Amino acid sequence: MTALSSLETPVLLLDEAQMRRNIARMQALMDKLGVVLRPHAKTSKCVEVVEQQIAAGARGITVSTLKEAEEFFAGGVDDILYAVAIVPAKLDHALALIRKGCKLRVITESVEGARAISEHGRKHGHVYDVLIEIDTDGHRSGVKPADPMLIEVAGALTDGARLAGVMTHAGGSYACRTAEEREAFAEQERSRCVAAAEALRKAGFECPTVSVGSTPTALAARHLEGVTEVRAGVYIFFDLVIAGIGSCTRDEIAISVLGSVIGHQREAGWLITDAGWMAMSRDRGTQKQPHDYGYGLACDADGHPIADLAFDEANQEHGVLRWTGDKSVDLAERFPIGTQLRILPNHACATGAQHEGYVVLPAEGGDLKRWRRFGGW
Amino acid sequence: MTALSSLETPVLLLDEAQMRRNIARMQALMDKLGVVLRPHAKTSKCVEVVEQQIAAGARGITVSTLKEAEEFFAGGVDDILYAVAIVPAKLDHALALIRKGCKLRVITESVEGARAISEHGRKHGHVYDVLIEIDTDGHRSGVKPADPMLIEVAGALTDGARLAGVMTHAGGSYACRTAEEREAFAEQERSRCVAAAEALRKAGFECPTVSVGSTPTALAARHLEGVTEVRAGVYIFFDLVIAGIGSCTRDEIAISVLGSVIGHQREAGWLITDAGWMAMSRDRGTQKQPHDYGYGLACDADGHPIADLAFDEANQEHGVLRWTGDKSVDLAERFPIGTQLRILPNHACATGAQHEGYVVLPAEGGDLKRWRRFGGW
Repeated sequence: MTALSSLETPVLLLDEAQMRRNIARMQALMDKLGVVLRPHAKTSKCVEVVEQQIAAGARGITVSTLKEAEEFFAGGVDDILYAVAIVPAKLDHALALIRKGCKLRVITESVEGARAISEHGRKHGHVYDVLIEIDTDGHRSGVKPADPMLIEVAGALTDGARLAGVMTHAGGSYACRTAEEREAFAEQERSRCVAAAEALRKAGFECPTVSVGSTPTALAARHLEGVTEVRAGVYIFFDLVIAGIGSCTRDEIAISVLGSVIGHQREAGWLITDAGWMAMSRDRGTQKQPHDYGYGLACDADGHPIADLAFDEANQEHGVLRWTGDKSVDLAERFPIGTQLRILPNHACATGAQHEGYVVLPAEGGDLKRWRRFGGW
Repeated sequence: MTALSSLETPVLLLDEAQMRRNIARMQALMDKLGVVLRPHAKTSKCVEVVEQQIAAGARGITVSTLKEAEEFFAGGVDDILYAVAIVPAKLDHALALIRKGCKLRVITESVEGARAISEHGRKHGHVYDVLIEIDTDGHRSGVKPADPMLIEVAGALTDGARLAGVMTHAGGSYACRTAEEREAFAEQERSRCVAAAEALRKAGFECPTVSVGSTPTALAARHLEGVTEVRAGVYIFFDLVIAGIGSCTRDEIAISVLGSVIGHQREAGWLITDAGWMAMSRDRGTQKQPHDYGYGLACDADGHPIADLAFDEANQEHGVLRWTGDKSVDLAERFPIGTQLRILPNHACATGAQHEGYVVLPAEGGDLKRWRRFGGW
């Protein structure tokens, strides 16, 4: 760990060996289930990470912004699903990417949206490949499989657009706590999305792609009959929220924030660090889970959890960690100024977004690497 | 508002005319109280914003990271206070900036920290100007004014360092709800920080600078006897948290996120927008206040609040706004796909940090401007 000691903190650390194990685990599962894995690149926003997913067998990627599509296309990925319902004002941008050679597919969940895409395509001499978003759990967006509007949306994809398939994201799976719940949720996501595809086919539409996915459901699926591809994002790094759901262990979390102790409040029993919410994000995703980790789980520089530190409060560039252990311990002696702590995040996507790059502990050992991470839209 | 309609959302909007009123309000108050205003630039992280603060009378700035010091020094500001206790691993970086001509002052709150700074200065032939951080409210960091350790810390600043003064931040003022509470908190911050300076002088130390500040206390101070400078940050933009404290009105908030409606869930009564937590941040700062605004207060594109929309849930690139009004309203008719909403943030510093720039509604009218905002450490 001597290489870390010279770093100016806070930094976002990535354990490459653990990331590779996470990639291999998901890819092996998808291979076994006979579906394509199309990872969601919103978690890493990093070309080097996505390259490893593709090298391991992923086919194409999912993105949440056109900026991600641009960056990954520039990085050599040309098969991209933009998985947020597109508004008319973004179609020029999307088409510009397609004209450059990107096989970008878009999604919609309304007749109004489908018409706007079709009209834009017609006007510019392009035929968009469009997936209809299906709501399989009442969590957020999408058309319910049995809603007659599903057929209307498909019917509104004419001239400048064609139906490429259906997609869903079972975001509600984050409320699962047991293996049985996760497995049932995966089956619900699968069966309802397949039902939507079948309803469309019955109405005379081709529906080649049936795309499902979330990290908890992807890892819990027993079979994926009727599904062609799975999308999942956070499995690449995992985090405390996913551990709380039961889809990974804390040991499988590949990402952490390295911070330094900058002060002590002896009376209050606090350590002050330079990893505040700017480094951790304001995500408090474990607040609703049985174990609330505050702003993250503090570990020593080697990654071993320190059970007696509670990360209760965070200001912009200050973390406040409360000592819950033996009151006779002198905090300033136990954790002198400059002591480095590795803090596991609640939510890898949110914590990652606070940083402009990764400091990578290389899988092969040797010198630390630095990988760029981008932000913005 | 036609200029906004062509924007790809989400973007961070800045109302320059309102920002100027906020600048003028704080500067006039500090002029009246006879102290220097040293604004905290962590809120904007934008050279163009800080230039306007300095043009209005601010003298020097405060920063929370050495990256901010670097960026603002490159932008022409050379009088900078780095207001987070510095750890030894950052001293090389700080000294490199000083060698380039930056009048950078640092802070400490421990004997250990003071020794490390002194030793680094001595070793490199530099004498650091150091302020001791004072704890005036038990909120976070600092030495209590009556703690004998205060004199020990000052005594540890030898050879390579000298005592430049004391500083405090009354972060506890964010719990205030009435004018009386804010005024009492401002007086507590002032009197305790001045008491620390007097204790040091009594012990034979010069203590030229007495620096206090937070936006709620700065705006509530009746007099600032013994104080030489005030630091405040968020007053430049204000936000819903500050409005909840009572230090500004909602009309004075100069910053917002412009998002677009991308879908509807009629049964649930939801609007789905493209301003999720990536655009708003995960900051839920009003959760503890009497009025909880969820992830922000939705307004129409002209900035008028829509009282019947509750911003309950946010995913990475999806905002979920629940309609609390008349159930007979057809949401898809009232807010068609593509409708733009301006969302006031809970916390300007946190929401700003999610963006790489500002879209500026110019004070003089005319075309939108774009100002860069930086991140990182």
